[in-house]
Amino acid sequence: MKKVLIIMGSDSDLPVMQETAKLLDELSVSYEVRISSAHRAPDKTAKLAAGAAAAGFGVIIAGAGGAAHLAGVIAAETTLPVIAVPIQSGALSGLDALLAMVQMPSGIPVATVAINGARNAGILAAQMLALSDDKLAAKLVDFKAGLLAGVEAKDAKLQKLGVAGYMAQK
Amino acid sequence: MKKVLIIMGSDSDLPVMQETAKLLDELSVSYEVRISSAHRAPDKTAKLAAGAAAAGFGVIIAGAGGAAHLAGVIAAETTLPVIAVPIQSGALSGLDALLAMVQMPSGIPVATVAINGARNAGILAAQMLALSDDKLAAKLVDFKAGLLAGVEAKDAKLQKLGVAGYMAQK
Amino acid sequence: MKKVLIIMGSDSDLPVMQETAKLLDELSVSYEVRISSAHRAPDKTAKLAAGAAAAGFGVIIAGAGGAAHLAGVIAAETTLPVIAVPIQSGALSGLDALLAMVQMPSGIPVATVAINGARNAGILAAQMLALSDDKLAAKLVDFKAGLLAGVEAKDAKLQKLGVAGYMAQK
Amino acid sequence: MKKVLIIMGSDSDLPVMQETAKLLDELSVSYEVRISSAHRAPDKTAKLAAGAAAAGFGVIIAGAGGAAHLAGVIAAETTLPVIAVPIQSGALSGLDALLAMVQMPSGIPVATVAINGARNAGILAAQMLALSDDKLAAKLVDFKAGLLAGVEAKDAKLQKLGVAGYMAQK
Amino acid sequence: MKKVLIIMGSDSDLPVMQETAKLLDELSVSYEVRISSAHRAPDKTAKLAAGAAAAGFGVIIAGAGGAAHLAGVIAAETTLPVIAVPIQSGALSGLDALLAMVQMPSGIPVATVAINGARNAGILAAQMLALSDDKLAAKLVDFKAGLLAGVEAKDAKLQKLGVAGYMAQK
Amino acid sequence: MKKVLIIMGSDSDLPVMQETAKLLDELSVSYEVRISSAHRAPDKTAKLAAGAAAAGFGVIIAGAGGAAHLAGVIAAETTLPVIAVPIQSGALSGLDALLAMVQMPSGIPVATVAINGARNAGILAAQMLALSDDKLAAKLVDFKAGLLAGVEAKDAKLQKLGVAGYMAQK
Amino acid sequence: MKKVLIIMGSDSDLPVMQETAKLLDELSVSYEVRISSAHRAPDKTAKLAAGAAAAGFGVIIAGAGGAAHLAGVIAAETTLPVIAVPIQSGALSGLDALLAMVQMPSGIPVATVAINGARNAGILAAQMLALSDDKLAAKLVDFKAGLLAGVEAKDAKLQKLGVAGYMAQK
Amino acid sequence: MKKVLIIMGSDSDLPVMQETAKLLDELSVSYEVRISSAHRAPDKTAKLAAGAAAAGFGVIIAGAGGAAHLAGVIAAETTLPVIAVPIQSGALSGLDALLAMVQMPSGIPVATVAINGARNAGILAAQMLALSDDKLAAKLVDFKAGLLAGVEAKDAKLQKLGVAGYMAQK
Repeated sequence: MKKVLIIMGSDSDLPVMQETAKLLDELSVSYEVRISSAHRAPDKTAKLAAGAAAAGFGVIIAGAGGAAHLAGVIAAETTLPVIAVPIQSGALSGLDALLAMVQMPSGIPVATVAINGARNAGILAAQMLALSDDKLAAKLVDFKAGLLAGVEAKDAKLQKLGVAGYMAQK
Repeated sequence: MKKVLIIMGSDSDLPVMQETAKLLDELSVSYEVRISSAHRAPDKTAKLAAGAAAAGFGVIIAGAGGAAHLAGVIAAETTLPVIAVPIQSGALSGLDALLAMVQMPSGIPVATVAINGARNAGILAAQMLALSDDKLAAKLVDFKAGLLAGVEAKDAKLQKLGVAGYMAQK
Repeated sequence: MKKVLIIMGSDSDLPVMQETAKLLDELSVSYEVRISSAHRAPDKTAKLAAGAAAAGFGVIIAGAGGAAHLAGVIAAETTLPVIAVPIQSGALSGLDALLAMVQMPSGIPVATVAINGARNAGILAAQMLALSDDKLAAKLVDFKAGLLAGVEAKDAKLQKLGVAGYMAQK
Repeated sequence: MKKVLIIMGSDSDLPVMQETAKLLDELSVSYEVRISSAHRAPDKTAKLAAGAAAAGFGVIIAGAGGAAHLAGVIAAETTLPVIAVPIQSGALSGLDALLAMVQMPSGIPVATVAINGARNAGILAAQMLALSDDKLAAKLVDFKAGLLAGVEAKDAKLQKLGVAGYMAQK
Repeated sequence: MKKVLIIMGSDSDLPVMQETAKLLDELSVSYEVRISSAHRAPDKTAKLAAGAAAAGFGVIIAGAGGAAHLAGVIAAETTLPVIAVPIQSGALSGLDALLAMVQMPSGIPVATVAINGARNAGILAAQMLALSDDKLAAKLVDFKAGLLAGVEAKDAKLQKLGVAGYMAQK
Repeated sequence: MKKVLIIMGSDSDLPVMQETAKLLDELSVSYEVRISSAHRAPDKTAKLAAGAAAAGFGVIIAGAGGAAHLAGVIAAETTLPVIAVPIQSGALSGLDALLAMVQMPSGIPVATVAINGARNAGILAAQMLALSDDKLAAKLVDFKAGLLAGVEAKDAKLQKLGVAGYMAQK
Repeated sequence: MKKVLIIMGSDSDLPVMQETAKLLDELSVSYEVRISSAHRAPDKTAKLAAGAAAAGFGVIIAGAGGAAHLAGVIAAETTLPVIAVPIQSGALSGLDALLAMVQMPSGIPVATVAINGARNAGILAAQMLALSDDKLAAKLVDFKAGLLAGVEAKDAKLQKLGVAGYMAQK
Repeated sequence: MKKVLIIMGSDSDLPVMQETAKLLDELSVSYEVRISSAHRAPDKTAKLAAGAAAAGFGVIIAGAGGAAHLAGVIAAETTLPVIAVPIQSGALSGLDALLAMVQMPSGIPVATVAINGARNAGILAAQMLALSDDKLAAKLVDFKAGLLAGVEAKDAKLQKLGVAGYMAQK
């Protein structure tokens, strides 16, 4: 199976982006994690992106904050699908990163998830890889069932304890 | 090869969403186009989404405006990757649709492209399908080369005509 | 008297949504509280909504954050009035939830209250039920008188203590 | 059956607010339409609101733009449910009206619909009145079925004509 | 000399609005401070506003948060100048209050100052009263000179201590 | 009576700012209109502002768009009350001008009205001057009565013609 | 004297960016104009930027819309000052481009001007080059005097014609 | 070599603006730091700006928050390049300062950096001065190499420690 390449612009993004890695661990999807800034290390970034397909990667996930160009710069160098994670940081709380990522021009798409949505980026990458991997597809079905079970369990607990009881246990 | 399922909430979205279809035609990717509203036709929408994988679809693209729930509602029913196209409409020009699509909760990702980014949604879908289709992957490389050639041609024309000359020919 | 059905997308919404329950307790309006996500538990949510009228509910209140689809998904399944409470959460502080709730398309309204306005959602539900319940209508008149009395008491205290004295007692 | 009172702050709001009236005509719900500004005619507005219940109204719908205080001022004078329609106007396209309406303080709720959502305000009012009117409730079920039928018809037409054919007929 | 009437919608606004009182104390301008909500105490508010001129007030300052209607409701009842102070509160940090105050319709102006600009509201009121009070006008000239002196003193201190020295003393 | 000084940053603001002049004509308030940019003519602007009080002006109204510094620059040079009119222009439709005007720092207030609220700026100036001019105060009471009469006339016409009839005559 | 390199992402930016060229013509500053997209032509863009200093350029001006990465990508490859012009386009009117340009991370600055501020970008470039070119510095002083003269002329015309007369001649 | 003049509107801006001074120290660029408010000390500010060129300054950096007029007011008085640093403060977190700085009218540019981007302002100033100072230009090349080395070091550390190990050492 193809691997996922996780790139972040700075190690300050790691507390958020580690959620992608954790999710991929849960689904046994292989990945590598790299720090490479679009602005401070443009050639390194371009090479990582341009060489990703040949290196066995199927999907690239880029996390960055502020004027977040990382995902776009990567998408410019590859035809692999690129997932963008806008990181909440600074005065504008990630709204700048969201717009700087999602509003890509025609021809070079980037698949943007929620601000700080690193875990969802991992799921989305897995969904892409599962298109040609039935085992992974089955795991995603199980994963989804787990989400439902979580809701059911919380609702059952709420029905049992009532609002005040539930709040007291939180 | 798996097909792409394009769903839009209303036929008022068709002038934008037809760009997805045109792009997929360029790349010879098969697709179906459906109108099904998350709010006016919830069961129809849920069934389309839940049955998509079995019907041979690999990716779903959802276009909607305003409180754009379509992509999220579809993603709730499938483990296929879902691409969201926020449609520019109404007083808030698509900012509402963008936020209503991209800010999905943990567990159910949606791959959001730019407001009115229907063409890019098609490219992104093709990139996903190309993970297991080398011919399509090669087409995407050609497509990308075409983008570069377009830039080169325009720049060459500008160098030849100058700014005023170029503006006069526009 | 018909009951109020309170649904929230996650137990993380409970600290806010419990205010709805408390307000309904004050007015002796019956209610049930459920956890059911539009995205993680779509069928459960649809069934709760579709069956609400038959189960004796007159109003449904939905609280959710982020790409808050819960109220819209519920409104798609019922002709009961649906009240939406956008929850403040994440990088965008509930502005995303507000827009994702209030900007519903023509045909499927949702009655949106303020971000974190769970208490007001309860009052609004009571106002709807009071249209056919004179006792509840009278309670709402008393409730409103209490609001005025609260203002009068604070103003009287301010006139007595002065600004500095009032601040010292806060 | 109780009537609906539609108030708008200016006759410049009438092109939007007439949609409420048309919708209520479709459902055979009685209504009155008044022009009364919260700022230019405060006493008139207060009297309309304070006397609405006694005059046989069950729901009040207020449409206004800019610093849209109309719905809040009305809600201050009545315990009837008040529906707010933010009108798109001026430099901020109705975002000001939306926030000025929806962010009501605790104790005085206003049920806000989408910017220019006058038609949905009518449906919401009907949903409230239908809580004690089975005939109206049945009409709303039919109305909802009509929405679904509209989607089905458009989707069927699209399947028949294809994207290009559909666009050509628009 | 005419007095200033300071009205706030809730005692939660007092920590901000006391700055208006303090500023007016500095300039020896008489004032009264009242709590009166546009929504919870509409008649009280209308009476305060309508009777302000006859009670010897020359300017009214209104502070409120959220869907801040207080200043507009007051301006509807008087021809005295009304100054609006948007209070920072809740999920939208006072942007809602700012827009709900400043975007008043033609005919009923409100003089809006910065979010939490309670001190500036006091200065502005004094400037208005000083139009017919030469002593107060002279005080405002002195006050302005004091602002300049404050800047000069800080700049002189910075020239003496340098950046690091200044930061160390902060 | 003191005069009103109307300053705008550019003659492109005149179509909006002439509404201030028209309003002051209606109320027989004397005024002068000047073009003077804070950025292109800073000394001229400073002199106009610094000399305004001695030249018989009581209020200054400043209209500007974009990074609208004009009102703040004027307020820095005078203790007269300064009214700011944010002009709708450019990509941000006046939101930039609004924030650049209203968010003044402590010590130097500016009385901001709505985006393009030039007419209201005139009314506000008249309200300030009327504090020491009973005739003008009386005119403002009449003016306000005229606003009410306008609403009453429109409402009466609506009651007579109905919604469709009113729309047909518009 | 060093030249100015003007790069835009697409020929759709030319109607705006030609203003930079015109301004530099007025000041007799040499320049070249290139079309090179950060996303569609990343290597071309990187080479243009990396080679700019050696090719005799002193300042680079980059104009782009949407997720405008062009200026940042250029700044990553050079130590020349880079000026960014956000272009108004699409649903968000250039707010996306502004944030995607101005919010650059520490280490790699970009000098951002107003949305569509292409003319100002040219002036700013000239100001930079004038630091070591006294003739150009003198031209800038003249240019600034011309701006003032323009204001004076318009103000004089307004004093002569009055508001109505001026409007009639526009 | 020409010096850099750093001006801030208030000593509350010093914790941010000291980063500019620190950066210029790193690059051995001479500078002076002044406190001078556009609003509280307009003449002082104008004189500082107007005299800057003659006093040996080549670039002016202005930091301010809220309705941040400082950079524009300075640019009005000089033909030196002016760099604007919007300071994060108050309810709007610096978005007001950003728009009040960047949206300058045609003729008077200001080079705006990120909110709180004081360090980048220093780099940008050095880039401008380096146009005629080869030593400084060489330092900037070294500085840029240092940025890249920092990224390489962090990435190497991450490859060695892994995500969990890296997080544990943070």
